[in-house]
Amino acid sequence: MLRSCAARLRTLVAAPARRPGPVWRLFSSEKVVHKDYGLPNPSWSKDLRLLFDQFMKKCEDGSWKRLSSYRQNPTRVLKDFQTRFVDPRFMKEEQMSKAQQFTRSFEEGLGFEYVMFYNKVERRMVCLFQSGLHLQGVPGYVHGGAIATIIDVTTGMCAYAEGVAMTANLNIDYKKPIPLCSVVVVNCQISNTEGRKLFVSCSIQSVDEKTLYTEATALFVKLDPDKRLT
Amino acid sequence: MLRSCAARLRTLVAAPARRPGPVWRLFSSEKVVHKDYGLPNPSWSKDLRLLFDQFMKKCEDGSWKRLSSYRQNPTRVLKDFQTRFVDPRFMKEEQMSKAQQFTRSFEEGLGFEYVMFYNKVERRMVCLFQSGLHLQGVPGYVHGGAIATIIDVTTGMCAYAEGVAMTANLNIDYKKPIPLCSVVVVNCQISNTEGRKLFVSCSIQSVDEKTLYTEATALFVKLDPDKRLT
Repeated sequence: MLRSCAARLRTLVAAPARRPGPVWRLFSSEKVVHKDYGLPNPSWSKDLRLLFDQFMKKCEDGSWKRLSSYRQNPTRVLKDFQTRFVDPRFMKEEQMSKAQQFTRSFEEGLGFEYVMFYNKVERRMVCLFQSGLHLQGVPGYVHGGAIATIIDVTTGMCAYAEGVAMTANLNIDYKKPIPLCSVVVVNCQISNTEGRKLFVSCSIQSVDEKTLYTEATALFVKLDPDKRLT
Repeated sequence: MLRSCAARLRTLVAAPARRPGPVWRLFSSEKVVHKDYGLPNPSWSKDLRLLFDQFMKKCEDGSWKRLSSYRQNPTRVLKDFQTRFVDPRFMKEEQMSKAQQFTRSFEEGLGFEYVMFYNKVERRMVCLFQSGLHLQGVPGYVHGGAIATIIDVTTGMCAYAEGVAMTANLNIDYKKPIPLCSVVVVNCQISNTEGRKLFVSCSIQSVDEKTLYTEATALFVKLDPDKRLT
């Protein structure tokens, strides 16, 4: 399973940068077509579209890759993962097929609108993030939990690019509140590795880079292929 | 504004424990009736209902109080907050009225199902939390960002009970993954205060207290009544 999951992640990172289609088939044997949420939709602001276009330009020489992003895992990946890691006592197959990726479970424009770009040489992940009206904390600002979520997702994908891993620690300094509906840039980089541990540093800045909203560090641990998760 | 907001928080904490109605009016002058999400609904599992009943029993002598919970802030609180803290350049009034509290923006049973109880003497907040199918991270388990969110919400309310404050730091150790759709108990307590700083410790355990899923510390800073947030 780990091999197929890792292969899938490599596929996500290696998705075609110059001809991004709205959908793709994860495996030729599967009939379900998954929508790619890492592409522009009508809710995207001008700021987000401009940044997206800039990064797509950077992808042209192959130094950066856009990541595809889906709401649900394909059936084969689900079954593999379930067999390998999940205790059947607490998760029935029917439930598994209805579960959705947290960050992609909102209606268009209301939750997390984002796209990630990966630079393999720099071991760096950039996430362009626009917060929707359903991510509110105190009135007018993004919820601290939603900020933690986009940090977990971006640092997580930065770690995943090196192997299937799960979050062990998140340490987040909230320096300035992020205005709701604004676009920000999440910047992550592998800072160190020790055995199965991957250390990732992270910052969230305004589009003009003048405001530092958040700084964070994350620790991920690669999964042990011989152990169940629980 | 700070006074009215703080008063509202006190009202939330002081909501009647023995006769919880499904709705209540935040201010007598307002016609909008808000649904209280901190009460049982058909998606609640037997585990969550049993724990809820146990804590409602503890409320009978007044040592614990159940907190009400809403999807949107009442119009007057919104206008007060907007006038006082929010820069009108990035947040229009129409948007503000459509914004929703992140943790209450899911359909019944699919996101965060939770209720909080507060013990003033012990400066302690307990959150009974059931995760829905739209909070998935790796297949079958709750997303690290969703866990960070329920920690932020619970430690935040623990801090809010002492004054209007915002998250400055969250440091989370993910010890074991939380199975999707399970019920867990989030336990928070003020551990220290220094001027406007409030330090809160937090743990997430299984209902039988045999499994420690997560440990965290949080730092909140009380808002300065003479400063705008941005």
